[in-house]
Amino acid sequence: MNSFQYQNPTRIVFGRGSVDKLGELAKPFGTTILLVYGSGSIKQTGLYDKVMGQLNEIGANVLELPAVEPNPRLSTVKKGIEIARAGQADLILAVGGGSVIDAAKAVAVGVPYDGDVWDFCIRKAVIRDALPLATVLTLSATGSEMNGNSVISNWEERQKRSFGSPFAYPKFSILDPALTYSVPRNHTVYGSIDIMSHVFEQYFSLTEHTPLQERFCESILHTVIENVGGALTDPGNYEARANLMWAGTMQQDWASHGIEHEISAIYDIPHGAGLSIVFPNWMEYVHTERLDRFVQYAVRVWGIDPAGKSDQETALAGIEATRNFFTRIGAQARLADFGIGAEHLDRMADEAVRFGPIGSFKRLDRQDVRNILESCL
Amino acid sequence: MNSFQYQNPTRIVFGRGSVDKLGELAKPFGTTILLVYGSGSIKQTGLYDKVMGQLNEIGANVLELPAVEPNPRLSTVKKGIEIARAGQADLILAVGGGSVIDAAKAVAVGVPYDGDVWDFCIRKAVIRDALPLATVLTLSATGSEMNGNSVISNWEERQKRSFGSPFAYPKFSILDPALTYSVPRNHTVYGSIDIMSHVFEQYFSLTEHTPLQERFCESILHTVIENVGGALTDPGNYEARANLMWAGTMQQDWASHGIEHEISAIYDIPHGAGLSIVFPNWMEYVHTERLDRFVQYAVRVWGIDPAGKSDQETALAGIEATRNFFTRIGAQARLADFGIGAEHLDRMADEAVRFGPIGSFKRLDRQDVRNILESCL
Repeated sequence: MNSFQYQNPTRIVFGRGSVDKLGELAKPFGTTILLVYGSGSIKQTGLYDKVMGQLNEIGANVLELPAVEPNPRLSTVKKGIEIARAGQADLILAVGGGSVIDAAKAVAVGVPYDGDVWDFCIRKAVIRDALPLATVLTLSATGSEMNGNSVISNWEERQKRSFGSPFAYPKFSILDPALTYSVPRNHTVYGSIDIMSHVFEQYFSLTEHTPLQERFCESILHTVIENVGGALTDPGNYEARANLMWAGTMQQDWASHGIEHEISAIYDIPHGAGLSIVFPNWMEYVHTERLDRFVQYAVRVWGIDPAGKSDQETALAGIEATRNFFTRIGAQARLADFGIGAEHLDRMADEAVRFGPIGSFKRLDRQDVRNILESCL
Repeated sequence: MNSFQYQNPTRIVFGRGSVDKLGELAKPFGTTILLVYGSGSIKQTGLYDKVMGQLNEIGANVLELPAVEPNPRLSTVKKGIEIARAGQADLILAVGGGSVIDAAKAVAVGVPYDGDVWDFCIRKAVIRDALPLATVLTLSATGSEMNGNSVISNWEERQKRSFGSPFAYPKFSILDPALTYSVPRNHTVYGSIDIMSHVFEQYFSLTEHTPLQERFCESILHTVIENVGGALTDPGNYEARANLMWAGTMQQDWASHGIEHEISAIYDIPHGAGLSIVFPNWMEYVHTERLDRFVQYAVRVWGIDPAGKSDQETALAGIEATRNFFTRIGAQARLADFGIGAEHLDRMADEAVRFGPIGSFKRLDRQDVRNILESCL
């Protein structure tokens, strides 16, 4: 096991109706609140009214940054920073999924910073302060509600970059599984794949002697695998929604998914869909790096019987089970499913390794990334 | 799944040599530090000198509360409160295992309180403030390094009581697995049983639809089961020690182990030894309350093959496997092993239910407790 430091200050308020506690939770942070949200679905579901009711009750002055994109854009973040500064916001409140929360984080760290907030994404500056941030989560996926990471797209330059900072942890996050009943079916699918992919990035590690961490990872994978069906069949299944939501929160972000980011930086496809395509191919490409871990994955997570199989056969059977599962719940397996061909492979490969080789399990250089992308076509 | 709130502010600094960061970690809290420790083994191992070196380097004024007992006593806590008040301590620093940390917590919450610190243990007062607290852990066991709970013995009245408070979380905890190399063999045994017992109290729950929580519990149990042998065979096995330590920290305290407390309140036997005796008998007594959970435990944790067995047979096989494991690693199975007979059964049963029936899996009244204790003889 490697040395590490761990601290997570976010207060989680989990359960049915927990949004009714928003007012009392927000009150200590001040009177002016910048509400950040997405496409407006929170208006259709009535959540917007509920949130405003809570904020009115504590006499808050509410500013708004609506229409945050699924891959949140730098331009939107900058608009939010201006609104927050002009209105002297005391608290940034994200109501939505990972994209909305990521945008709100960028606003929170951008407000007290004199330069361009993009500096944090390209490592030109270090985050030293932030406005307080809180979240009401409406989609189980990224774990962004309980970490200090954010991914922002610079659409003009077709770049997708991330930052992470202890200052960007939410002060509190409200997790009400019932709020996820109304998410579109494909968001439930892609969100589940996103959770699993985050776990993969942690699980397929070269660090040895981490049995507890590996089993925690397997626990999250099992929980997603066992509950996504229930949520798809009956969108109002509280227990399935609660288990997906808690699984999404307990996996915590730690790295960007480099290759997929380059796809969705150029094509604006759903992040989870990109992951569904990339991950099985990445697994096939790297599995010989650490065959034992892939065998363990196949046996423990997918129940592959290793009897009569070589280690490689067992490992590949686990990878195939992964791909089949993604397809079964309704995600895509090939870039062609989105009409994407080979035309930008070189550019995506260039961008992915812009700051050097990526990945820690196997360091991927430009050619590796291109090979994996090609296998995704 | 039930609704809940979750927050854990403790900063964990984990790894070989992490005690070398003590100075910089402690510095922000002030200049006068009350060092709390136990029997003095930290002087033999050189840890005391290392700690003092770190504290001298930052120019700290160090006060001392030595000789904290394995079941820490109220009288010792009160002595610590006096020392901290007289010397105007800024930070309480526990260097030791769960007992030392628990005592330090009681000192930390007791200093700013006008009344008797025992009030917190008997629910006569609510904790509203505390001095900052930090820990250097030398024994993997209770999770006390990452929670706000404490268990204190009032030896005069033969009572053992607990308190818990958000104010009693350590600000930081230094976890260096190498510091546990030198603990006596039986502390490694009892500490491991303590970790497992804490998990049992969470695992054997009536709450349904908690697959992730159950799998996390199983992950911790597997990690202890797989690593305790390595630590006993080779006390300097870093990886085994690291895995036990992280397992102990990741299980977090949530309730007192009521029945065992009554045994060690009267007999001063090691807490882990008491748990080793009580738990298998408690399991046998309550297993019909929720047979499915005990079957799951037997199959997933101990690999019991349910084929050809009734659910009850499978459940009982899992309980027997637990008892056998405790015995195999060197713990006791009967009170008689400590020369304890039936003479105080009634008194222990009375004390255990002093505030009403105990336990949530099955509410145990006085007769239940007496029955379980009798099966432990």
